[in-house]
Amino acid sequence: MKEKCGVVGISANSETDVSTSIFYGLYALQHRGQESCGITTIDDQVYTEKGMGLVPDFFNYEKLKKLKGKKGIGHVRYSTTGGSDIECAQPFVISHSTGTLAISHNGNIINTNELKKNLESSGDAFISSSDTEIIAHLIVKFLAKGISIVSAITEVMKKLIGSYSLTILTDNEVIGVRDPLGIRPLCLGGTNGTNVLASESVVFDVLNMQFKRDIKPGEIIVLTKKGIKSYRPYKLNKQANCMFEYVYFARPDSILNGKSTYKVREKIGVLLGEDDNIRADYISPIPDASIPSALGYSKARDIPYIESLIRNRYVGRTFIIPDQKAREIAVKLKLNPVLPNIEGKRVILFDDSIVRGTTSKRIINLLKDSGVKKVHMRVGCPPITSLCKLGIDMPTDKELIANNNSIDEIRRCIGADSLKYLSLNSLIKAIGMDKNKLCVGCLTGKYPIEILKYEQKLLPTFYKEEN
Amino acid sequence: MKEKCGVVGISANSETDVSTSIFYGLYALQHRGQESCGITTIDDQVYTEKGMGLVPDFFNYEKLKKLKGKKGIGHVRYSTTGGSDIECAQPFVISHSTGTLAISHNGNIINTNELKKNLESSGDAFISSSDTEIIAHLIVKFLAKGISIVSAITEVMKKLIGSYSLTILTDNEVIGVRDPLGIRPLCLGGTNGTNVLASESVVFDVLNMQFKRDIKPGEIIVLTKKGIKSYRPYKLNKQANCMFEYVYFARPDSILNGKSTYKVREKIGVLLGEDDNIRADYISPIPDASIPSALGYSKARDIPYIESLIRNRYVGRTFIIPDQKAREIAVKLKLNPVLPNIEGKRVILFDDSIVRGTTSKRIINLLKDSGVKKVHMRVGCPPITSLCKLGIDMPTDKELIANNNSIDEIRRCIGADSLKYLSLNSLIKAIGMDKNKLCVGCLTGKYPIEILKYEQKLLPTFYKEEN
Amino acid sequence: MKEKCGVVGISANSETDVSTSIFYGLYALQHRGQESCGITTIDDQVYTEKGMGLVPDFFNYEKLKKLKGKKGIGHVRYSTTGGSDIECAQPFVISHSTGTLAISHNGNIINTNELKKNLESSGDAFISSSDTEIIAHLIVKFLAKGISIVSAITEVMKKLIGSYSLTILTDNEVIGVRDPLGIRPLCLGGTNGTNVLASESVVFDVLNMQFKRDIKPGEIIVLTKKGIKSYRPYKLNKQANCMFEYVYFARPDSILNGKSTYKVREKIGVLLGEDDNIRADYISPIPDASIPSALGYSKARDIPYIESLIRNRYVGRTFIIPDQKAREIAVKLKLNPVLPNIEGKRVILFDDSIVRGTTSKRIINLLKDSGVKKVHMRVGCPPITSLCKLGIDMPTDKELIANNNSIDEIRRCIGADSLKYLSLNSLIKAIGMDKNKLCVGCLTGKYPIEILKYEQKLLPTFYKEEN
Amino acid sequence: MKEKCGVVGISANSETDVSTSIFYGLYALQHRGQESCGITTIDDQVYTEKGMGLVPDFFNYEKLKKLKGKKGIGHVRYSTTGGSDIECAQPFVISHSTGTLAISHNGNIINTNELKKNLESSGDAFISSSDTEIIAHLIVKFLAKGISIVSAITEVMKKLIGSYSLTILTDNEVIGVRDPLGIRPLCLGGTNGTNVLASESVVFDVLNMQFKRDIKPGEIIVLTKKGIKSYRPYKLNKQANCMFEYVYFARPDSILNGKSTYKVREKIGVLLGEDDNIRADYISPIPDASIPSALGYSKARDIPYIESLIRNRYVGRTFIIPDQKAREIAVKLKLNPVLPNIEGKRVILFDDSIVRGTTSKRIINLLKDSGVKKVHMRVGCPPITSLCKLGIDMPTDKELIANNNSIDEIRRCIGADSLKYLSLNSLIKAIGMDKNKLCVGCLTGKYPIEILKYEQKLLPTFYKEEN
Repeated sequence: MKEKCGVVGISANSETDVSTSIFYGLYALQHRGQESCGITTIDDQVYTEKGMGLVPDFFNYEKLKKLKGKKGIGHVRYSTTGGSDIECAQPFVISHSTGTLAISHNGNIINTNELKKNLESSGDAFISSSDTEIIAHLIVKFLAKGISIVSAITEVMKKLIGSYSLTILTDNEVIGVRDPLGIRPLCLGGTNGTNVLASESVVFDVLNMQFKRDIKPGEIIVLTKKGIKSYRPYKLNKQANCMFEYVYFARPDSILNGKSTYKVREKIGVLLGEDDNIRADYISPIPDASIPSALGYSKARDIPYIESLIRNRYVGRTFIIPDQKAREIAVKLKLNPVLPNIEGKRVILFDDSIVRGTTSKRIINLLKDSGVKKVHMRVGCPPITSLCKLGIDMPTDKELIANNNSIDEIRRCIGADSLKYLSLNSLIKAIGMDKNKLCVGCLTGKYPIEILKYEQKLLPTFYKEEN
Repeated sequence: MKEKCGVVGISANSETDVSTSIFYGLYALQHRGQESCGITTIDDQVYTEKGMGLVPDFFNYEKLKKLKGKKGIGHVRYSTTGGSDIECAQPFVISHSTGTLAISHNGNIINTNELKKNLESSGDAFISSSDTEIIAHLIVKFLAKGISIVSAITEVMKKLIGSYSLTILTDNEVIGVRDPLGIRPLCLGGTNGTNVLASESVVFDVLNMQFKRDIKPGEIIVLTKKGIKSYRPYKLNKQANCMFEYVYFARPDSILNGKSTYKVREKIGVLLGEDDNIRADYISPIPDASIPSALGYSKARDIPYIESLIRNRYVGRTFIIPDQKAREIAVKLKLNPVLPNIEGKRVILFDDSIVRGTTSKRIINLLKDSGVKKVHMRVGCPPITSLCKLGIDMPTDKELIANNNSIDEIRRCIGADSLKYLSLNSLIKAIGMDKNKLCVGCLTGKYPIEILKYEQKLLPTFYKEEN
Repeated sequence: MKEKCGVVGISANSETDVSTSIFYGLYALQHRGQESCGITTIDDQVYTEKGMGLVPDFFNYEKLKKLKGKKGIGHVRYSTTGGSDIECAQPFVISHSTGTLAISHNGNIINTNELKKNLESSGDAFISSSDTEIIAHLIVKFLAKGISIVSAITEVMKKLIGSYSLTILTDNEVIGVRDPLGIRPLCLGGTNGTNVLASESVVFDVLNMQFKRDIKPGEIIVLTKKGIKSYRPYKLNKQANCMFEYVYFARPDSILNGKSTYKVREKIGVLLGEDDNIRADYISPIPDASIPSALGYSKARDIPYIESLIRNRYVGRTFIIPDQKAREIAVKLKLNPVLPNIEGKRVILFDDSIVRGTTSKRIINLLKDSGVKKVHMRVGCPPITSLCKLGIDMPTDKELIANNNSIDEIRRCIGADSLKYLSLNSLIKAIGMDKNKLCVGCLTGKYPIEILKYEQKLLPTFYKEEN
Repeated sequence: MKEKCGVVGISANSETDVSTSIFYGLYALQHRGQESCGITTIDDQVYTEKGMGLVPDFFNYEKLKKLKGKKGIGHVRYSTTGGSDIECAQPFVISHSTGTLAISHNGNIINTNELKKNLESSGDAFISSSDTEIIAHLIVKFLAKGISIVSAITEVMKKLIGSYSLTILTDNEVIGVRDPLGIRPLCLGGTNGTNVLASESVVFDVLNMQFKRDIKPGEIIVLTKKGIKSYRPYKLNKQANCMFEYVYFARPDSILNGKSTYKVREKIGVLLGEDDNIRADYISPIPDASIPSALGYSKARDIPYIESLIRNRYVGRTFIIPDQKAREIAVKLKLNPVLPNIEGKRVILFDDSIVRGTTSKRIINLLKDSGVKKVHMRVGCPPITSLCKLGIDMPTDKELIANNNSIDEIRRCIGADSLKYLSLNSLIKAIGMDKNKLCVGCLTGKYPIEILKYEQKLLPTFYKEEN
């Protein structure tokens, strides 16, 4: 199952309990997962509170009070197809021969079937269908052999093919793990002896802490009250940060792998604008992710930026009436046009990306019904032709509109008067990283994991301590 | 009690039940009140579902199914001081000598104490502290005398001093009422024999219906399945539309009294910009209400518009940890700075208005801590020196920072490097209405209601049918 | 609407808050109403918590803490047909010209339509369909004339035709009122300056307080911190205590109108036994109400008492599967036979009363299926031929099996081998009160209220203070 | 953790879904566990619904509808010390190499620490602290070796020391297992090809099915749609049915190991009565378990049986106010004296057993305060001197009043005027089974499990099919 999620881990020095800080951290990462959330902390005992729903809806003062201890991890989970269930809420917590193990996972393991089959054949059983339970079983198997937790994680990393940013809680430490390609983000911050791991740097902003650095691809970082230790068993000569975090998924105020999401998005707009010459009265974003791009485009081409669609801040929560008319209304409830800004106007509409194309179609249709003269669609990401195998929830290949349609077919399908995508080169330029440090599998069909499978075999069995 | 709220009323011709449409309408008006919500419909019976919380949280498919009938009204209610209670949730529904009466109210009645005392002295009792219950009792008293509902409402309007936009449901009709000064908005839309009353025009957008017109000040409009009848007992030579609806309260995609909220806000920015010459690297809004103004200012002065604060879309729901540190974190949870956009920069920060000044202070403080070089505060509304008596929830006079501080004192207090307010003349110009058609009581201390008190005595006891 | 309920009222001297004591009192009266419950208390403010469900389910520590004050009243409400609604939960609380009025009501007012029509014609409106709201409006009308609360209640009593035991809370006092015929019970207890009104004496047992006396028919009793005052405007030469409280409704450990419910039921069994000569192996009750009767019968006839049906203590709460088979299972879930006690045996089955006959039929059927040889039905109450108009929830006349069937027809219908009812004379003898002090309207069709209607006209307008 | 619980398992032939029948079965077994409940069913998929609370409170129509399939098991769980948690709610469900395994468990495994340590040392991890998870892991370990489920269970039985009645659900069968000593009950019923396993025979009554037989000690019974297969790997020359099921725990209408609980309790009273000569006015039970015993005693000694304490049917649910006074009130809320039956009387009070003695003390105190003249305590079970290790929740040895007090010391401590216990011989006689077929460990300190530990070593590794 795809685990498109957000993780937090805190080891505090001074503070009484970490639960409130983890709560705030998860709150700031809510955009990474709205289905379920959870926190596990530890002192002499283990405390877990997890359940369905949003962070501020599920947690309350009583629950946070119960979560005692100076170490803990947290998780927000995205609703993926079907298996949305309380059993899949994380952290996943177990007791084993030498203590307790709790894991929060963001990513997607590709070889789960094989791993699960191996474990089951030696008599293991599973209560859920989550990747995380498999990772937990693997770690415990190695721990039972008497090796250290870091060695156990190292051994498990050899077996995992896929993306994973983990925060792990044991009786004595909080551990962060990032897969050897660094596909999903994970970073380190802190102040005054309190150290924090989080999917995105905004967590440190909210907690009023210093951003320290990104966790390196293949790094295992161990936080204890004595300080930080880092291990890096796997240093590949390649990395593969997910480009879609910049394009859409991460918050604009986050800095990932040293790059400002906002600035990347702004640059996307500038580059697409510099390469464009369509005539229009206004440039307008489909809020929220493409706002910086639309502003960048506006600047590059000196076309006025305007809001043509207002997002209802209260939509997106719970309940949708189950009928056809309802779906049409749902679009307008979410995004309503500002009529005086669009009537009779030629509008460039900027979207961060097109996946299925259905939303684009509905929005363009809505604008046309509202009297717009022309809609020129500009997309801040090259055509998505293959599904993501590494942790972004996407439909099947067939449902991807760019999988088997030409640009002009897409244009006609969504009803735009013109359509232009960002080029792959411009995207890489906007992100500002070397091409072979990015995962662009959904754009090219070439997944970095193929390389990993090969290199996996070459991985050393020893590792050196770094700090 | 102040009833800063949103109202809807629908009389349908073809549709089976109106509850779903009212639900969508309330959903689109959620910004006008998040405390409680409710819908009342009628066929042979009366059905009411009301409760605490947001529209999509409180209502579900089962509740909407129970609300049968082709006529109904709805309400969303703002949380005002203290008396937030299920007893105050609307519509307020009663049975009386000749049938049922349900009322939804947006506004504030000033002479409630006097009215209540009169009613109580003749033996009336009240289950709540809401204005609406008083209005209901008054109407019923007149109905018991055997006069028509329109006559009864007319008589009651003579007694009410204050602001009120009402939707009223009886056994046979849906009625809209707007106070003689037209302080709170109310408008009419519809399609194919279905007629809709709503606080803002966005409701018609969402329901895919035509906007028809604003309800006139002092108008009583009656929707039945046969059509619309309009009565206008009170035609004053003055009106007093609330300017704060344009400045902050209404949605930018709404058109009130013929004026686009978005365009007014944009013009506010343009006018303030044309009158300004401060040097800065960027202009940036405090989202969401001031975005069009900041864009207008940017255009007027050719200073680049940028997002410096990102609003967390999931904040603002339920639960806040009760401690001091929590309050500081709360600001960052809600609005987090985009560091690369502000570090070392001179930023013009645009806010729609300043009430207490505490939020401005916290935000400027946050930006300064984040490394901004200069913060120049620009405010899209003149200083608010007096509290609103007519339906906008505001603190007491003393708590208004502009009530007893000079501009420079305010600047120092909020920590801005410079501070500039929009002038009253510019505001009026931006709205584009005659000065004496607006209520600017909170800016000048002169409330239109004084005039009303005088004119009230002169009101005719007859009225003529208009349509 | 029939208000078959339980009421409590407490005025405390020493104790800080009365809410916990009222809670315990309602808990002890839970058998009188399981649909909704509520408590209102008063100090400088009025506090009300009321809602659907059982006393221990609805109330919790937080709710009781909110209910401050040394005076308060409470209510449990029975689920009657249709109108089960949160709007009907009591206490009913209103503010009026001179303060607050809260009312809890047990009983049934017969002339509500007439009373309501009168009130409505003078402009009153109602939020519910409950008798209690009408009583409240009537009291407030008189209070508005400037007379005292006791005078106001006296005036209202002149207008009410029906049964009512009320506890009333004002800003200064807790008041108990019992209708002039004393149909529903109400009694007084207390200790150390704390005085308690309650439907049944068990409340005093639970609160560890002294039972003092029954409230007299037509009495108004006023509890303040200074002590007790009693008024008795209506002293009829007749009373009409409901016989069904003894037969079924009240708790066996309660003493009502000076008579022990347990002893009355035991005597019912003795008298029916003395009058019977059927041969049987065992006498067995349908639990719980008829246990003392079955024991009395056993003693009178020297036939061994045995349990043949075991009541599942967990049944009766919430949820029943909606299908036919489910109804059959429901009987067995509730009452399951003890097979070794009945197989091949002749059993006398004692029931407290037969209303519809459907439950008797199901139980006898169940016993026969389980191998019983003979079932001789004995009933501790004469045939119920007319519905109760005075506060016991019963089906319509037509649904009463004894309304249009002979004893032998009933026997055949329910499948008993023999059937014998207690005679009216024996019932009266068992209760031990004069015949004309009891209401036996449901057995004879002659309701005491007819007399009341006549005597009502003769009621004096003054009254004398008694204590 | 002690698993004092109730279990159900159904394999249906004709019926569409078994969930409703399992629900009714659990409802009938609610007395065996009120903390949590759950049902697992299977068709092509596995469905589980489990949670905290009572069966009719947790389950509803929607949940039962989701539980599809013709095979399923259910569980109710008793609240034991501390570890009351949703993680411990059963059935415990896992997926393994060859399919699904769900287990419901009633009993207590003694050697869990050893078993858990072994499993953990080979790399197993646990999500809960329940015995059941250990049993599940053990079974899966054997299944992974490729042997059949019956063989796997047989192997696991060799390792388990303790009491266990299990219902197990696999993809193809419903399996019942009873420990070799038959400590906890488990029986078989059914009709028309539908077969049912249940802790007590009342389940068959409620489902209108035939009781067939008890599951034999050490038996594995397999229900499939083709019919029943029985295996009996362990046939010891001893059994050890728990005597406390008869004394207190089971329902009086259940027949366990061929003995009617009601009749056993009645005989207990008769035997204790025949051996007694105290003078008294009445014999009275502490309801509910000792009612048949008190009736038996009454018959044996010809002393009238009377109810002196009325149990409030609504007590025992949820919420108790946390203060001292509250505890005193709690006793009266639960059991209130019938004053006219006890004032000035000499009463024999019959209790089923005395564990801590605190409740006895409170009740006797209550009766004395209520004016009883003498209280003679009679107890239908010999002194409990040792705690149960095999599945009945009891306090520690030290807390058992009979552990270190003479009979007379106990009498003085609880405040009785005289005290008499049933003798062990009479108990055995009342149950009517051979002494060495019963577990009386809590009365003698000699647990049958010692024997089991010895015999365990001698168990054969093969087994023969019986049917």
